[in-house]
Amino acid sequence: MNLRIPGPTPCPDYVLDAMNRDMINHRGPEFQDMLHRCTDRLKEVFKTESDVLILTGSGTGAMEAAVVNVLSPGDQVLCVSIGVFGDRLAQIAEAFGASVTKLTATWGTPADPEAIRSALAENPDIKAVLVTHNETSTGVTNDMAAISSVVKGAGKLLVVDAISSLSSLPFYTDEWGCDVVMSGSQKGYMVPPGLAFISVSDEAWKAFEEAKMPRFYWDFGRAKSYLNRGQTPWTPAVSVFYGLDAALERMLDEGMDAIFERHARIAQKTRDGVKELGLSLFADESCASNTVTAVNVPEGVQLGALMRQLQADHDVVLAGGQGALDGKIMRVGHLGYITDEDITQVLSALSTVLPQVGFQPVTSPARGA
Amino acid sequence: MNLRIPGPTPCPDYVLDAMNRDMINHRGPEFQDMLHRCTDRLKEVFKTESDVLILTGSGTGAMEAAVVNVLSPGDQVLCVSIGVFGDRLAQIAEAFGASVTKLTATWGTPADPEAIRSALAENPDIKAVLVTHNETSTGVTNDMAAISSVVKGAGKLLVVDAISSLSSLPFYTDEWGCDVVMSGSQKGYMVPPGLAFISVSDEAWKAFEEAKMPRFYWDFGRAKSYLNRGQTPWTPAVSVFYGLDAALERMLDEGMDAIFERHARIAQKTRDGVKELGLSLFADESCASNTVTAVNVPEGVQLGALMRQLQADHDVVLAGGQGALDGKIMRVGHLGYITDEDITQVLSALSTVLPQVGFQPVTSPARGA
Repeated sequence: MNLRIPGPTPCPDYVLDAMNRDMINHRGPEFQDMLHRCTDRLKEVFKTESDVLILTGSGTGAMEAAVVNVLSPGDQVLCVSIGVFGDRLAQIAEAFGASVTKLTATWGTPADPEAIRSALAENPDIKAVLVTHNETSTGVTNDMAAISSVVKGAGKLLVVDAISSLSSLPFYTDEWGCDVVMSGSQKGYMVPPGLAFISVSDEAWKAFEEAKMPRFYWDFGRAKSYLNRGQTPWTPAVSVFYGLDAALERMLDEGMDAIFERHARIAQKTRDGVKELGLSLFADESCASNTVTAVNVPEGVQLGALMRQLQADHDVVLAGGQGALDGKIMRVGHLGYITDEDITQVLSALSTVLPQVGFQPVTSPARGA
Repeated sequence: MNLRIPGPTPCPDYVLDAMNRDMINHRGPEFQDMLHRCTDRLKEVFKTESDVLILTGSGTGAMEAAVVNVLSPGDQVLCVSIGVFGDRLAQIAEAFGASVTKLTATWGTPADPEAIRSALAENPDIKAVLVTHNETSTGVTNDMAAISSVVKGAGKLLVVDAISSLSSLPFYTDEWGCDVVMSGSQKGYMVPPGLAFISVSDEAWKAFEEAKMPRFYWDFGRAKSYLNRGQTPWTPAVSVFYGLDAALERMLDEGMDAIFERHARIAQKTRDGVKELGLSLFADESCASNTVTAVNVPEGVQLGALMRQLQADHDVVLAGGQGALDGKIMRVGHLGYITDEDITQVLSALSTVLPQVGFQPVTSPARGA
């Protein structure tokens, strides 16, 4: 299967092979070694000297962990949303009692750092800014350098959902002063879902000491104290750890800069190819994500029929739209274990199937891929 | 490795093989089929007609889910603890604002149903009783039939941690009127950690509608509404699902009664063998668990030295004690993928290593195994 959704991503054979191993004692020396090795390597991926904690759960679990560990009920927070996942972060903050001011950009566009500056100036009691780095639902990447400059310039806590970007797109946790950053195994790491990663800056630890939202499973303090003795507080997803251990070694061998360049090149190839087919991109190229490309479903084409035929005839699986974009866009994931050939295959399949499901290009004829 | 800890348990080859498969779209038809199949089979294992939800997380996550979905801050609950995991359930309830009355049994003994009856009579405002079925830290199984008769007779909500028992020991969710029951993949299911299972009775759903504890990731309502369309709300641990799917098929082929009998027989063999070595059991045999046996560390023996040598010379890995029992007991896990030969090997290794680490039997000479 050419699985081209924005996570879970395909896994290389060396990841699947690493996972084909029986269980070990998660409170024994072998796990201790693996936990420390993975944690140290994740710090290199996060580009941080701060703590990185590995949690067993989905990315949304890490989002909940980020909220409940640094905030108290009633705390004022600014939630910067540019899509489904930005909305989700705001929903979590609200569910746990934060007082949320929401700054929403039109879907398909990035957050405006100046709008964040104004919102912070108008609401001086805001304690933290919660923002998505790469919005999977719209295929848009925010300018984190600019946003962090505004947020940290204002002395606020900066909480970043980098679940679908970190390890694929340039991200500099310490340089940008990000206090809490979330990521997940099923994205650029090329590992099955089940583990989430979260960095905690010194400032975030200070916030943790005062934070009063109820927490237990996601508690940073418990995770850190167990990490100090080479364990996780609760039984970890051991097999996913095996995969992560193998993947991180290969990733650092390839080098983060090389990984970033590969993602940028393949994303450009995707966008160029999609346009050559006569399709239009949902997001402007100036902010288009290099991990996922959102493509407008052309008039006259039923997305369900298109996706079913892509899978049935070509074994190509794309993602549809989420929320308000359901049926209106399709998304091509190109993160993690991705090659030029994978995208060539997607474009070729699209060029064959599109006319079969009623597509008539308006702008330029499909030239194939 | 002869991994004889009470979870994660060893995985059969057919589970590891099933997991050696690349990712699929967790919002596609293949995952939908697998989710429905696993859910239906789990209902057979739980012996319930009620909903069973599959959550991505550790067993402790399911414990948190149980608490936050049926309770409100200030609700009075009775927490019946007979060890570390009963204490943990009480800690979670307290962390989320419940008013906890705790009924604690001496470690190594089971809960007394009559004490529960008295506690409920003395505290008529108690809304729910939280209890551990099988206490992994002490190797004691509670009499759930008797406890449920008292709790449901008093009209209270019954929340049961059956993480280390359900699928290995007889458990009858509906017959016993259990409202919320938790279990986990890394126990009797012979699957790696990463998935937790939780049943929700009609009465629990009514409590859910009124429950005000903050929740998002663990929210039963979101899990149920996504299950209705063949999905999970958040990205699931797909590879663990593959293993679970394979394991549940084999378990139902073997038959739950046959599995219960196998566990009872092997547990008896373990207890008999340990006593023959001149060691003493931590818990009375009348309440001893059939998934894990707690053994007193004999005088003059350093548990660390014993466990290191068992692993180095015999590739046998046992668990130590938790909390107040650290260094005082060792625990032999015998749940899930377990055979008579596995226990023979454990007993043989113990008979060799014990004298090497200073053991001098007091009661009867070690006769080997």
